[in-house]
Amino acid sequence: MKAVIVERQSNINTLQVTELPIPKPASGELLINVQAAAVNRTDIVTREGQSGYATNPVLGVEIAGIVEQAEQETGFAPGDRVMGLVNGGGYAEYAVMPADRAIKIPAEYSFEQAAAVPEVFLTAYQTLYTIGRLQRHESVLIHAGASGVGTAAIQLARTLSQAKVIVTAGSQKKLDFCKDLGADVLINYKEQSFEEEVLRATDGKGVDLILDFVGADYWDKNLASIKKEGRWVLIGILGGVQVEKVNLFALMSKCVQLTGTLLTPRSDEYKAKLTGDFVRDVMPHMKKGEIKPIVDTVFPLAEAMEAQRHMEENRNIGKIVLGVGN
Amino acid sequence: MKAVIVERQSNINTLQVTELPIPKPASGELLINVQAAAVNRTDIVTREGQSGYATNPVLGVEIAGIVEQAEQETGFAPGDRVMGLVNGGGYAEYAVMPADRAIKIPAEYSFEQAAAVPEVFLTAYQTLYTIGRLQRHESVLIHAGASGVGTAAIQLARTLSQAKVIVTAGSQKKLDFCKDLGADVLINYKEQSFEEEVLRATDGKGVDLILDFVGADYWDKNLASIKKEGRWVLIGILGGVQVEKVNLFALMSKCVQLTGTLLTPRSDEYKAKLTGDFVRDVMPHMKKGEIKPIVDTVFPLAEAMEAQRHMEENRNIGKIVLGVGN
Repeated sequence: MKAVIVERQSNINTLQVTELPIPKPASGELLINVQAAAVNRTDIVTREGQSGYATNPVLGVEIAGIVEQAEQETGFAPGDRVMGLVNGGGYAEYAVMPADRAIKIPAEYSFEQAAAVPEVFLTAYQTLYTIGRLQRHESVLIHAGASGVGTAAIQLARTLSQAKVIVTAGSQKKLDFCKDLGADVLINYKEQSFEEEVLRATDGKGVDLILDFVGADYWDKNLASIKKEGRWVLIGILGGVQVEKVNLFALMSKCVQLTGTLLTPRSDEYKAKLTGDFVRDVMPHMKKGEIKPIVDTVFPLAEAMEAQRHMEENRNIGKIVLGVGN
Repeated sequence: MKAVIVERQSNINTLQVTELPIPKPASGELLINVQAAAVNRTDIVTREGQSGYATNPVLGVEIAGIVEQAEQETGFAPGDRVMGLVNGGGYAEYAVMPADRAIKIPAEYSFEQAAAVPEVFLTAYQTLYTIGRLQRHESVLIHAGASGVGTAAIQLARTLSQAKVIVTAGSQKKLDFCKDLGADVLINYKEQSFEEEVLRATDGKGVDLILDFVGADYWDKNLASIKKEGRWVLIGILGGVQVEKVNLFALMSKCVQLTGTLLTPRSDEYKAKLTGDFVRDVMPHMKKGEIKPIVDTVFPLAEAMEAQRHMEENRNIGKIVLGVGN
């Protein structure tokens, strides 16, 4: 089968299509004929050799495809259309997936749309609910509102919690898109001071919850934007990994809860439970079309490197997908 | 009545006994004839003019005494022996206390012992359970094990959760005391590298929960000592307030939850609920003598400044109490 692996060329890590044997499913795993895979920042980190936890030489942590092989007790059968997280191996014609992470694809979805669901919607769900404990009518600040996770989080916060959704993005086009998805307060971080806008929109109190993909650059501004006893979930470091001079008393006197999280390095059990909770709480809304995956661009598998560059340049609104269909 | 207030003398803030009118209880408050008050680090911060939230000119956030005046619907009556948190005003002959924070004193306790209960036991309970969600048989690292909160936390973690309790302290005398209270692993931070000892005691995995009173100096070592998906509660900054460099990816890849907390600036509702939970979960063990307050020294009210110095020099094991009895 065709699969994409990392190759080092004159000091730069790039992506190459190669021929590899079809993987063999272990007990409890499905073999999937991959129709589409999606691109994630964790793939870029893995390509750069910095993730420290990727064990599969083939990149890619989420797919949509057709079940090729399944034990009966998994509840799936050959021919089923499924989407879900994989432990690497997604950028390929075939991949294995633990059956307890497979989600049946709604009939209306193409495989490209389905591939745009697992990672960003599970991450947004985990961040807002499993960790962030978002309650009805609370306020949430979502940075990078037009990103994959951002577009998922806006929809979940609006639909499941009728939350007040405050987003930041770097262009009017992206902000307009966020507004169409249901965002209430739109902040162009290039033109406005986001912490001032957040305080204005929350009667000076700050937000109950922050979804932070930015990290170091926004540290002090996030601390100014959060309510007393607020929750702050750190899920990305687009704005730098190292914060200089952190004042711990500020975290204490505001009684802030800061949680760092990543989805990829979590355990199999964690991902299975998260998938189950997500299917129960979110899939009914997807089937009704109230929540939808956002696909930015579909690249062919052979152009995986171009697809990653598109993400690195922040040109996407929603997900970047690789079409793998045979 | 006699009361202790802050006085500025040649650029140093010191404490002075003065005469003030007896405070008038508002609706829902008890007037207490104070028999003992205890000293807390928050009092020192207030004396230094740095707390930012103290509104009462009289210092002191916890007392034990005799109810002097109470509305019938509070469930208390004149003559009742009570202990609990007050919104300042503790270092005095009389103080007012919201009735939903008053805890009846077990018959066996002296007022000095009772004054040693509220702040440290409520803080330890809040930190271990309300925030830290300690589960049965989990492991917990308690820094400053011989401090007021440390001695309370060791007993709670052992008695309520049969947890593996790992403590740090700066002398053998303090460690021996922690051992007598039930600590399992004793680390002298002046002679041992605590993160190595923690990993050794937890099969290299790290602890489920850290109670951190130290802050900046221990930042990297705490991060090395915590288990993946562990909880880290920051409740003190004895080792400095400013961390020079924080690597956010480390928090993310370990999926750490860091919560800053202080008890004094929390709302009245929060303190009432915490007191209720504490009475339900902990007071039965106090009445049976399985958990006990630890009194280091009792100073007379007029020597409040000496009492605070004793704390600043870290000379105490357990609580420093002011005897106020008339």
